[in-house]
Amino acid sequence: MADRSGRRTGRRPGDTSNRDVILDAARSQFTQHGFRGATMRAIAAAAGVDPGLIRHFFGDKQGLFSAAMEAPPILDCFTGPREEWGETLARTFLSLWEDPETAAPWRAMAASAFANDEALRRFREHAVAGVLRQGIPLLPPDNPGLRLSLAISHVIGTALARHVIQVPPLAAATLDELVALIGPTVQRYLTGPLPGVSPHD
Amino acid sequence: MADRSGRRTGRRPGDTSNRDVILDAARSQFTQHGFRGATMRAIAAAAGVDPGLIRHFFGDKQGLFSAAMEAPPILDCFTGPREEWGETLARTFLSLWEDPETAAPWRAMAASAFANDEALRRFREHAVAGVLRQGIPLLPPDNPGLRLSLAISHVIGTALARHVIQVPPLAAATLDELVALIGPTVQRYLTGPLPGVSPHD
Repeated sequence: MADRSGRRTGRRPGDTSNRDVILDAARSQFTQHGFRGATMRAIAAAAGVDPGLIRHFFGDKQGLFSAAMEAPPILDCFTGPREEWGETLARTFLSLWEDPETAAPWRAMAASAFANDEALRRFREHAVAGVLRQGIPLLPPDNPGLRLSLAISHVIGTALARHVIQVPPLAAATLDELVALIGPTVQRYLTGPLPGVSPHD
Repeated sequence: MADRSGRRTGRRPGDTSNRDVILDAARSQFTQHGFRGATMRAIAAAAGVDPGLIRHFFGDKQGLFSAAMEAPPILDCFTGPREEWGETLARTFLSLWEDPETAAPWRAMAASAFANDEALRRFREHAVAGVLRQGIPLLPPDNPGLRLSLAISHVIGTALARHVIQVPPLAAATLDELVALIGPTVQRYLTGPLPGVSPHD
């Protein structure tokens, strides 16, 4: 889209694709420059929108990040053989935290979700809802949301205990050891029987 | 201890029992009045020490709370039959979060540990170290610290996902359902084989 001077114009707020265009630009900028390096201005420029429109949709940079990072690892974890899902999910989420640079924005997201209700609401509405929406169709029809929630809260809880709290035995274990330890649990939550719970969509 | 006027005196910092006396008083005040209601002044008075001594040992009220709450549920979870440890630990930690009043100080502790490094250090040195120190002797000699760390990070991760993040399927489940779901996992971590890990103290 260009105006008469040939300059790329800002998209209108009513354009329903704006949100997706912004998210694509944000994912690209966060990946290239990290959370600190990526600026709202550069993301807006890359998306061809006004920074105010980003704020309108997502609030601040953290809110934009939460939305942009909606469940990207989920989509890849369920493409391989079903019996490897647990190990794959465990390795994917744990790996994300092994590099402090990669982990920084996730850690910031967790910290702000604990610290203020507005960030928590955004985290719930963007990241959590995104994971569930994208993951549920990939799972067994018996309680897929509960399965995914148990599996992901376990891998994230383990990652936080290892990297943020730095519980000594978890910090000292190797990534492979942790994957071997929790992978079978995650697999059971994803595809095994769910004791004490009646079948449910 | 009384001075010549008969007034109860402040204990000296060199008195090694001061720390325990303060912790007993703090536990009692936190239990009776909750985190907000309990004051450093009242705790100091109950312990017969100067409030400055509490700050010397524990920093602020949050630091004192972390220390006072060192692993109290742990001690009770391993008194029953060994095959029920997983369920008991799951129920104990999840129950702690069911009542918002009881959960408030734990939630504050989690939030401050994410938000600032000093609170995190205290959490690690008091609460985490306390849990490990008290729990390890109760567990099988093969990797007891790793067992306890996996078990507790799983139950706390589930509690946070249910009550703080409020992941819908976990928030909608009943307490009994969650205990039935994660209890067997916690039991395996505590007493079962540890895949991929060599036996180790």
